[in-house]
Amino acid sequence: MNVGTVGAIKGAVSTDDLKIIGTQIELSNTYHLHVRTGDELIHELGGLHRFMNWDRPILTDSGGFQVFSLAGLRNIKEEGVVFSSHIDGHRIFMGPEESMRIQSNLGSTIAMAFDECPSAKADRKYVEDSVARTTRWLYRCIDEMNRLNGLETTINPKQMLFGINQGAVFDDIRIAHADELSQLDMDGYAIGGLAVGETHEQMYHILDVTVPHLPVDKPTYLMGVGTPENILEAVDRGVDFFDCVYPSRNGRHGHVYTHFGKLNLFNQKYERDMGPIEEGCGCPACRSFSRAYIRHLLKAKEMLGMRLCVLHNLYFYNHLMSEIRDAIDDDSYATFKKETIEKMKEQ
Amino acid sequence: MNVGTVGAIKGAVSTDDLKIIGTQIELSNTYHLHVRTGDELIHELGGLHRFMNWDRPILTDSGGFQVFSLAGLRNIKEEGVVFSSHIDGHRIFMGPEESMRIQSNLGSTIAMAFDECPSAKADRKYVEDSVARTTRWLYRCIDEMNRLNGLETTINPKQMLFGINQGAVFDDIRIAHADELSQLDMDGYAIGGLAVGETHEQMYHILDVTVPHLPVDKPTYLMGVGTPENILEAVDRGVDFFDCVYPSRNGRHGHVYTHFGKLNLFNQKYERDMGPIEEGCGCPACRSFSRAYIRHLLKAKEMLGMRLCVLHNLYFYNHLMSEIRDAIDDDSYATFKKETIEKMKEQ
Repeated sequence: MNVGTVGAIKGAVSTDDLKIIGTQIELSNTYHLHVRTGDELIHELGGLHRFMNWDRPILTDSGGFQVFSLAGLRNIKEEGVVFSSHIDGHRIFMGPEESMRIQSNLGSTIAMAFDECPSAKADRKYVEDSVARTTRWLYRCIDEMNRLNGLETTINPKQMLFGINQGAVFDDIRIAHADELSQLDMDGYAIGGLAVGETHEQMYHILDVTVPHLPVDKPTYLMGVGTPENILEAVDRGVDFFDCVYPSRNGRHGHVYTHFGKLNLFNQKYERDMGPIEEGCGCPACRSFSRAYIRHLLKAKEMLGMRLCVLHNLYFYNHLMSEIRDAIDDDSYATFKKETIEKMKEQ
Repeated sequence: MNVGTVGAIKGAVSTDDLKIIGTQIELSNTYHLHVRTGDELIHELGGLHRFMNWDRPILTDSGGFQVFSLAGLRNIKEEGVVFSSHIDGHRIFMGPEESMRIQSNLGSTIAMAFDECPSAKADRKYVEDSVARTTRWLYRCIDEMNRLNGLETTINPKQMLFGINQGAVFDDIRIAHADELSQLDMDGYAIGGLAVGETHEQMYHILDVTVPHLPVDKPTYLMGVGTPENILEAVDRGVDFFDCVYPSRNGRHGHVYTHFGKLNLFNQKYERDMGPIEEGCGCPACRSFSRAYIRHLLKAKEMLGMRLCVLHNLYFYNHLMSEIRDAIDDDSYATFKKETIEKMKEQ
């Protein structure tokens, strides 16, 4: 999924561009759209698809991650969380029902359950209590989403709801939670609370032990991940889809992905390089512009430099996923993964 | 001409975009490209057309305007000007020969003569001396450009050179200078030193008295102008082409042009407006996105908001010029001008 926080991919990329770079599904952030412009206004205007002019799937997160990471002083209770807007500091309450109502107003294709994402360093007792509350919150999410989907004013009466597995780096808590979630007939399942400070090995280990406890016939989504290598490893462990700000954030800093590793276009050695970012790449940047020109734009702080790098990186990620699907269809995934990871280390 | 200062239109607009919005000719700034990245490097890489990937005409200014307006402490002598780079303060010397060499390195389609643009408030004696020096500089520009166009290493051996009429708001100095320039068989003629603080009425008056003294069979270019109304009035006085940062600069601030006047998309009244910036407009912004969405992007400081407004404004200007050409071909320019200016006052 390409991440369009407030209903637009950072780097001056529009939904028309997303079609050109092969985006299958866009992700927007519930918290950001709630505090800026507002989900009620977007509902009134026909929902996020119409607002952004996008006719492919949209996933909205629950707002939980931003509440726990971005917002000011917060207070978690059984009902939900009271926190301060990062824009103007005003007090906001968000619980499972509020998150569902906001996501229903946005009318996304897939809504995410409201959960707590505990720190990778939280102790066992904290994580146990947090996961139990996340489960109680999930039941409330399901009830509220069912109610909302039945309303006459709802934008997407078939809005899907995904449950989120938590448990930090504790195998048994992860597994017990996955088993419990699997009893519920959710539209899909996410693994949350990873890529928040633990090592890559810890993350792969949690996937090794957790994914087998999630239904094989439902999509599995690893939240907030990651590098091309992370994605290749996670797919090997049964993950189906991903979101990450890396391609757009790195692009805005002139870091671009290739099959031969990541390049920093600010590097002096690209000053006279009239080749594309990656030979053979079909993205709008590589089809028309050189490393030397893009480097010049980045150094002159021209927005176009950022835009071209973001377009390239998102195309690279979307194209990587397409290569992954082809390799799986060909029964050659193990070889593909090994070769791709090795090649990427060349740079 | 759409203005791409350092080889890119501000607002994340690429040369691929320029083709979509109907740009006939792009303008880049000699001074900016000289101090940033450097004309010698661009020459080595095959010139500005290749660097930007643009196969239509490029006009480069002489660098003079930036030297006199942007650069730090400067010292004008007969040879040229010593000034400080606005980026790192280092001392640079630029005279007619240097300006021609830089523009030859860039390989633009049209080079501009190196001139002094005196302040609109300069006294008569200063302007007289300045214009006399500008004329002496023009002879040096012609000699140097002829020499450069004959070199084997030149990128564009058919690079054109335009002379620039100066004279502030003194009719007789303007006329005498125009007469003198007309003796030289320049590829085209520009009127400089306007839109620098004088009133619109003063500007129109200077055009009224000056343009008749320039050759009718050569293109006439009014530098740094202006609003749609300025353009419509100047065309009526015989001007053929223009450059101005208004459409891109205003676009980046959410000010967009329509045939019914300029709108400020930050205005609250567009919050729920799902119509395009202008009904019937064929630009990439109007074809896909609403005023409400663009307003949301601008308020959230998303680059995409700026890009869409810049694309719209440049399309509007390019399209206005095309409407002007059609009206001239139809012999209906007087009516077209009157009606267009009246309609634009509606907002």
